[in-house]
Amino acid sequence: MKKLSRRTFVGSSVFLSFAGFAGFLPLLNQSKKKQKKMFVHHVYFWLNNPHSAEDKKKLVEGLNTLKSIKEIRMAHIGVPAGTNRDVIDSSYAISWLLLFDNLKDQNIYQEHPVHLKFVKNYSHLWSKVIVYDSVDV
Amino acid sequence: MKKLSRRTFVGSSVFLSFAGFAGFLPLLNQSKKKQKKMFVHHVYFWLNNPHSAEDKKKLVEGLNTLKSIKEIRMAHIGVPAGTNRDVIDSSYAISWLLLFDNLKDQNIYQEHPVHLKFVKNYSHLWSKVIVYDSVDV
Repeated sequence: MKKLSRRTFVGSSVFLSFAGFAGFLPLLNQSKKKQKKMFVHHVYFWLNNPHSAEDKKKLVEGLNTLKSIKEIRMAHIGVPAGTNRDVIDSSYAISWLLLFDNLKDQNIYQEHPVHLKFVKNYSHLWSKVIVYDSVDV
Repeated sequence: MKKLSRRTFVGSSVFLSFAGFAGFLPLLNQSKKKQKKMFVHHVYFWLNNPHSAEDKKKLVEGLNTLKSIKEIRMAHIGVPAGTNRDVIDSSYAISWLLLFDNLKDQNIYQEHPVHLKFVKNYSHLWSKVIVYDSVDV
C-alpha cells in the first residue's frame, strides 16, 4: 500500500468506509459511491452566567455524560472560535454537535434516560438554547 | 480480523485513525488517545425566495463547487429535518457544515478564489446568513 497523502486519504477506502458509517459526503467529486444519509443535530447554549468558567465547565461535564448514548455516531463540544465577521454569532457559550444515522436514532437520544437526567441536572445553567436539526438535501 | 459490530467499530483503530484525521472526539470513554483538534464552521442560509425550489437547488449547486477546496476535511449540505420543538430553529433553507483541521485552514477557505467566486455568483440568493465557528473546549 503506497503512502497516502492527506489529499488522497480523503478519497481512500478507509475514508469511504468511515464516510459510509458516519454518513458524511466524501469531498472528492469523482467518488460516485452512494453515501449513507445522516442527521445533524447542532445545539448552541447560552449561559445564565456567561462569564462563569465554572458553569461552563459544569455544562461540558454534563455533555460528556451524553456521549455514552450509543445512538450517537459522533460528538463535538465546542466554544466560539474567536473569528469575527458581521455574519458570525459568537455570543453563545457552548456548541454541541452530534451526528446520528437518522431521525429515529436522534429521537432515541432525546428520550434516553441519560439525556433526560442531563436536562434535569444541568438545565439551570443555561438561559437560552437554539437547536438546528438538518438532514441531507 | 474479526467482524466488527457497529459499536466496536467506533472504537476501532480505523475509527481512531480517522478521528485523528478529522479531529472528532471518539465516543468511547475508554479511549484515552489524544485527538486532533478541529474547527467547526456551520453556516445557515435563509433565501430571498424561501419557497423557490429552484433557488434552493442553485444554492446547493454553488455549495457543491466549494467542495473542491482542499483544506476542507468534511462537508455536509443539509435542510431542516422536520423536527419541531420550541428550541428548534427550522426557519433556514440550507445548512452548510464544514470541518477544518484548524483556523488557518478555515482562513484559506474564506479567501480561496473558489469561495470568493461562490459569494459573487450566489449571494443574490440569500437574505440572511448566520455563521457559528467553534473549536475544541
